[in-house]
Amino acid sequence: MHRHFDDEIQQLVDLLLRMGAMVEDSVNSAIVALEERDVKLAEKVIEGDTAIDHLELEIDQLALLLMATKQPTASDLRLITTVMKVTPELERIADLAQDVCERVLEIGADRPLRSPDVMPLARAAQRMLRDALDAFVRRDVVLAQTIIARDNEVDGMTEQSFREHLTYMMEDPRNISRAIRRTFIGKYFERIADGATNICELVVWLVEGKVIKHAGA
Amino acid sequence: MHRHFDDEIQQLVDLLLRMGAMVEDSVNSAIVALEERDVKLAEKVIEGDTAIDHLELEIDQLALLLMATKQPTASDLRLITTVMKVTPELERIADLAQDVCERVLEIGADRPLRSPDVMPLARAAQRMLRDALDAFVRRDVVLAQTIIARDNEVDGMTEQSFREHLTYMMEDPRNISRAIRRTFIGKYFERIADGATNICELVVWLVEGKVIKHAGA
Repeated sequence: MHRHFDDEIQQLVDLLLRMGAMVEDSVNSAIVALEERDVKLAEKVIEGDTAIDHLELEIDQLALLLMATKQPTASDLRLITTVMKVTPELERIADLAQDVCERVLEIGADRPLRSPDVMPLARAAQRMLRDALDAFVRRDVVLAQTIIARDNEVDGMTEQSFREHLTYMMEDPRNISRAIRRTFIGKYFERIADGATNICELVVWLVEGKVIKHAGA
Repeated sequence: MHRHFDDEIQQLVDLLLRMGAMVEDSVNSAIVALEERDVKLAEKVIEGDTAIDHLELEIDQLALLLMATKQPTASDLRLITTVMKVTPELERIADLAQDVCERVLEIGADRPLRSPDVMPLARAAQRMLRDALDAFVRRDVVLAQTIIARDNEVDGMTEQSFREHLTYMMEDPRNISRAIRRTFIGKYFERIADGATNICELVVWLVEGKVIKHAGA
């Protein structure tokens, strides 16, 4: 019986990891779409969001079923509630990848000769997400803490990118429409990094039973 | 014993409603700070966020304790998990009120003679939050559905406000720095409305056991 429950918990974790992989794919594709002005790829990411939403529901249903029908131990309960708290974070990250792609569609395929670069910021957020999922899989608190520390860097990069875009717009008002959309894109990646940070805080809580969220507050 | 458990569930709900009231206060104050260019009030909202964060942790701890130490019925379990899913939504809304206030501080006390108005959007989001909490208190699915329907309106208002700000910036590049911050403020209120929508979807799920999230997907 207990063995059987372990299998079901594993199934829950597997579903979460599948969702994580899909969300990572969306973010990776959004970055390629942004860099290559690939409108087709951007459309594909936007369409793929439905499958992620469905998986989120499936995971939540299974988590609730396990809580309601089994009597999970305290540590299983922590794992199940962690999963239920990670899914909305992942869903939000997928939505942000979708937002990036919508701005890519608005900007279109034209390539300006010179505009502030959001790619370093995008890549930093992408790495944080990849590493956050890795920290969850390996229950690696040290890695999780390192990723959380990187969030400040990303915030700094976002701030810098914002200032560069502001200057760029002021230099030539014809840049405004495109630049403001790229400013939004910068903010989306900042929020993707925030989501990765939230996942890492949940990993620490899962492993150590210690809440570090709002620790700086 | 069961009576005692009911009391504890009620305590959990009371804490959530207290958090809801604090978050509503933050949003209301952020709107006043924005409208009156009240820098002092904006600072007060930013400082008040710590108390909200602490309350979120307290609620989550109690929810987990109830799940781990009692054997909640299926409907109690649904209520407890709903509470655990509403807290991060409220926390995010409080963070957005804080973001509004940070932009208010950056814009400062100067009052431009003419700039696109974000107040109708702000007030629409504020009403959605107030009504969402009301729908939760009264377990009112019909009200919840009405609020969810209002989210499209808010999205439309945000889009319109964005276009107006874009025009305003293009007319005179000296407007850019302030206008872009006001565009961000519009987006924050759109996300506050999204948070209210998410809370309403959780109310429907709580009452009917039916997931309507992503129903359009």
